[in-house]
Amino acid sequence: MTAPSTPLTPTLELACDLIRRPSVTPVDEGCQELMMRRLAAIGFALEPMRIEDVDNFWASHGQDDGPVLCFAGHTDVVPTGPLQAWQHQPFDALIDADGMLCGRGAADMKGSLASMIIAVERFVAEYPLHKGRIAFLITSDEEGPAHHGTKAVVERLRARNERLDWCIVGEPSSTTLVGDVVKNGRRGSLGATLTVRGKQGHVAYPHLAKNPIHLAAPALAELAAEHWDAGNAFFPPTSFQVSNLNAGTGATNVIPGELKAVFNFRFSTESTVEGLQQRVNAILDKHGLDYHIDWALSGLPFLTEPGALLDAVAASIRSVTGRETTPSTSGGTSDGRFIATLGTQVVELGPVNATIHQIDERVLASDLDVLTEIYYQTLVKLLA
Amino acid sequence: MTAPSTPLTPTLELACDLIRRPSVTPVDEGCQELMMRRLAAIGFALEPMRIEDVDNFWASHGQDDGPVLCFAGHTDVVPTGPLQAWQHQPFDALIDADGMLCGRGAADMKGSLASMIIAVERFVAEYPLHKGRIAFLITSDEEGPAHHGTKAVVERLRARNERLDWCIVGEPSSTTLVGDVVKNGRRGSLGATLTVRGKQGHVAYPHLAKNPIHLAAPALAELAAEHWDAGNAFFPPTSFQVSNLNAGTGATNVIPGELKAVFNFRFSTESTVEGLQQRVNAILDKHGLDYHIDWALSGLPFLTEPGALLDAVAASIRSVTGRETTPSTSGGTSDGRFIATLGTQVVELGPVNATIHQIDERVLASDLDVLTEIYYQTLVKLLA
Repeated sequence: MTAPSTPLTPTLELACDLIRRPSVTPVDEGCQELMMRRLAAIGFALEPMRIEDVDNFWASHGQDDGPVLCFAGHTDVVPTGPLQAWQHQPFDALIDADGMLCGRGAADMKGSLASMIIAVERFVAEYPLHKGRIAFLITSDEEGPAHHGTKAVVERLRARNERLDWCIVGEPSSTTLVGDVVKNGRRGSLGATLTVRGKQGHVAYPHLAKNPIHLAAPALAELAAEHWDAGNAFFPPTSFQVSNLNAGTGATNVIPGELKAVFNFRFSTESTVEGLQQRVNAILDKHGLDYHIDWALSGLPFLTEPGALLDAVAASIRSVTGRETTPSTSGGTSDGRFIATLGTQVVELGPVNATIHQIDERVLASDLDVLTEIYYQTLVKLLA
Repeated sequence: MTAPSTPLTPTLELACDLIRRPSVTPVDEGCQELMMRRLAAIGFALEPMRIEDVDNFWASHGQDDGPVLCFAGHTDVVPTGPLQAWQHQPFDALIDADGMLCGRGAADMKGSLASMIIAVERFVAEYPLHKGRIAFLITSDEEGPAHHGTKAVVERLRARNERLDWCIVGEPSSTTLVGDVVKNGRRGSLGATLTVRGKQGHVAYPHLAKNPIHLAAPALAELAAEHWDAGNAFFPPTSFQVSNLNAGTGATNVIPGELKAVFNFRFSTESTVEGLQQRVNAILDKHGLDYHIDWALSGLPFLTEPGALLDAVAASIRSVTGRETTPSTSGGTSDGRFIATLGTQVVELGPVNATIHQIDERVLASDLDVLTEIYYQTLVKLLA
């Protein structure tokens, strides 16, 4: 691998600096210090917020009145998996012969972090007296438990009535070309562990036992076939999936005493947590089951409807790439769900997500420069 | 615990000798040597058959023509479980204040073995020139895998055209009073492991996956609700039970790639192995499942209809205890299923089974003397 003949752009230089810090979740490895140094140099007020074992920071620039645009993201990355499987070592941050920036975090999401910093540096240099405020909300615990990261920072911001009008999360939202998709919401995620109680016994004496597998099967069949809602213009229909199902002692001649099923709803704004819980209970009750459910709400659905932020982002993508972006609410959860609880319009916009979490994570290097330009144009449209 | 003031009866003395040998399956610990010594002393021809790691023996007394009555049983016992949980140590063979002989194997089935030996000793002494032959088929692998025990011995007997007209297996058949129930057959046992294949994926993208739990649930519900047969005068209806059901990676956000269900039929003579297999396949096919089944036949059903053996056993129970016995085909499998394949009439007759395989296994000591008398009377009726 030879170094590219042309010097790196500022965005790529910073992206490489960040990737070379092996910040496997929840470790930050100095990424945030590097970002804060750059932001301090252009006049940002910094507020590091280490919460438990997680590094986070909040930073802002501008004046108290006027709208607030926040860039949000995470410096932590997922583990590499087996090093020998990587074509280029994951923390070397090389640009290969195809122009791909290779390394863990290239797409998710150190590339976006670099683009945000460079875009903001340019914008503040050109518009030192911009409207409102620019903020950064950065965590190192998005890929891990996510308890002491964005969620905790948001609670502190809420406690002091910090206002966030707009937020761009740098998650890799694009599918094939940078900017082709932005996420303007996410489904809710509601998990549960269902325990169905029967009565253990010998398979030769079924009349003395109650087989929880036999009792639960028709109820599971009905839950799996249920039509929960039809979705709406922004959300696909709510889906129900059983991820784990276990019953049995291992012995082939014993009827087990209980069955456990772990299931998950990804739900649209057409359903509520309480509504889904009531309907599950109603189906289980109808089948006469003796059961217990432990519910775990991972996140409520949120939606950023067309408005100033989505308009600015779409127009910037159009002017930089010539593409019409597609707003989407599909996919897994992100920290956007926590920020949206502040009443903030949240859009996720980042590079192509085809290789995230994989061996040989990579992103087209020039896409990061395109992304910098899109972020910059958005700043101009909203705060110039 | 003080020793009983009266001397032990011959049956109880031998039962205690056997229980004190800790013959946890498949170890025999000299039990069979003790039995063979007693049988050799009254003129039995002995044939030890150690097969792989299992001690078995065959012994017979009498002449080549005339009917053959075989006593069958096992010297191995199930493990004790935690010793500190036992009121009296499991291999001490004490008779407690309530007259109960306590110890592992007291009921299953060293008590029966002692009764058989004493009954045969008395019978041979009184009828040295009895009709036909008396035989013993004893194994030390009934409580374990049962591959190199009775099943293997029966194959050797079949290979040399050994004839067995009648067989009394000493399994503890009685429920509350000795002799109240004899087993005159057993249901068949057909096991299976079902694998239902789906396609693994992320719970957030169910359209890219196929959830085998959702696919299998309606089929399992239908299998559990199926009426397989109505049984008949001798057998209860065939029963189907799923003993183990497992699917899932452990992760709550992953749709698993396959589901495994272990199930078992206990089937009457109204159903066949092939018929049950076809009906299971038909239900799974109807639900469009991609599946595989590994079948494991543990034993075909067998039945000893009313005839010379059952009549003799019932009359002996009546004359010794005043009770009308109830023939039954319920319960788990026993080695009787192997012996029945020789065309033999098989009846299981032994003490009360309330404590078998449990902590503090025990049997009313005097019941073993009653059992000796029943075995003796049966010998008289069939071979005197």
